[in-house]
Amino acid sequence: MRLYDFELSGNCYKVRLLLGMLGLDYERVAVDSSKGETQTAAFKTLNPRGQIPVLQDGDLRLWDSMAILVYLARRYGDPERPKGPWLPSDAEGEGRVMQWLALAENELLYGLARARSVLRFDRPFDLAACQAEGRAGLEVLEDRLRDRHWLEGEGATIADIACYPYAALAEEAGVPLGPYPAVRAWIERFAALPGYQSMPGIRGG
Amino acid sequence: MRLYDFELSGNCYKVRLLLGMLGLDYERVAVDSSKGETQTAAFKTLNPRGQIPVLQDGDLRLWDSMAILVYLARRYGDPERPKGPWLPSDAEGEGRVMQWLALAENELLYGLARARSVLRFDRPFDLAACQAEGRAGLEVLEDRLRDRHWLEGEGATIADIACYPYAALAEEAGVPLGPYPAVRAWIERFAALPGYQSMPGIRGG
Repeated sequence: MRLYDFELSGNCYKVRLLLGMLGLDYERVAVDSSKGETQTAAFKTLNPRGQIPVLQDGDLRLWDSMAILVYLARRYGDPERPKGPWLPSDAEGEGRVMQWLALAENELLYGLARARSVLRFDRPFDLAACQAEGRAGLEVLEDRLRDRHWLEGEGATIADIACYPYAALAEEAGVPLGPYPAVRAWIERFAALPGYQSMPGIRGG
Repeated sequence: MRLYDFELSGNCYKVRLLLGMLGLDYERVAVDSSKGETQTAAFKTLNPRGQIPVLQDGDLRLWDSMAILVYLARRYGDPERPKGPWLPSDAEGEGRVMQWLALAENELLYGLARARSVLRFDRPFDLAACQAEGRAGLEVLEDRLRDRHWLEGEGATIADIACYPYAALAEEAGVPLGPYPAVRAWIERFAALPGYQSMPGIRGG
């Protein structure tokens, strides 16, 4: 298996987290999206959207972190895992997990990740608007996690993996996590999962 | 089944399309997000994100169009449908469909839908930047559809349903579809599917 990967991308980190937690070996191909390396014609033959991550697994090539999380969980995740699967196969369970993948693709990505990209990579977005959207996402997580350990079910799922990176990187987005104690506790809990790895900029990482 | 719905929302329209194509009866509760009706405390007990659509099916309440599409396809879609399921259950098939749900949640939503919201609902986003992102999404669709009828597999899937509304509403976003003949042909093909319904602003709708 091969992952086209940029160490400082939270979206790539989601995939590295799941690969690590599933105990899968893979080859990393470093692509620096901050230097335009995803915008070349050669890279766009791998992903027409010109983005990382891209996963190659045998004949299958998949782009997009969300699609890759779903694929890996379905293909390599143990459906009999004691605290429940990484991605349930029943309609209700899968729909519930998808809610949090949607939060990750919206408030967290267009809020927290974009705000971080302004401060970290000098991207031209409206910092205050992105931070406000990111805080709205953190409030939803905070409410959800106030009385539970994981976003859905009894154990961590790809819902947690999808939401974790940009929440844990929130301080790099200029959004301190002080007002979100349940999110901070979940971040600590997440970092104790077997197979966890950190990345630069992560709280305590 | 009950759908909290706004007629002019492309995200709600995705859910109405699938409900119609699956032949499911439901009650519509109209919520006008353009007048702030999703931002009330009462509405936020239904969806903490303050957004439509929300689906209530028996005891299950789900928010987010993507999560609802996945749930409905899995719960009510015929897995033995002649041209393939609305959402495959095998890892590769599901991962491939998810790629297009990701395009719908990113370039199409933050590009085309946001540009439309500037022109249609006077929202405060950067119109030119949103239109550029929307065109990038349409180019990916155009390349994909040049030599195939549907985004994945032999028949329409929730990949097509997720991408269709904001592509078909592109002219309301100030993005003419002239340069995208394969997208236009797919839009015509989609509108001929059994159970199809239109919405205001859709090409030919």
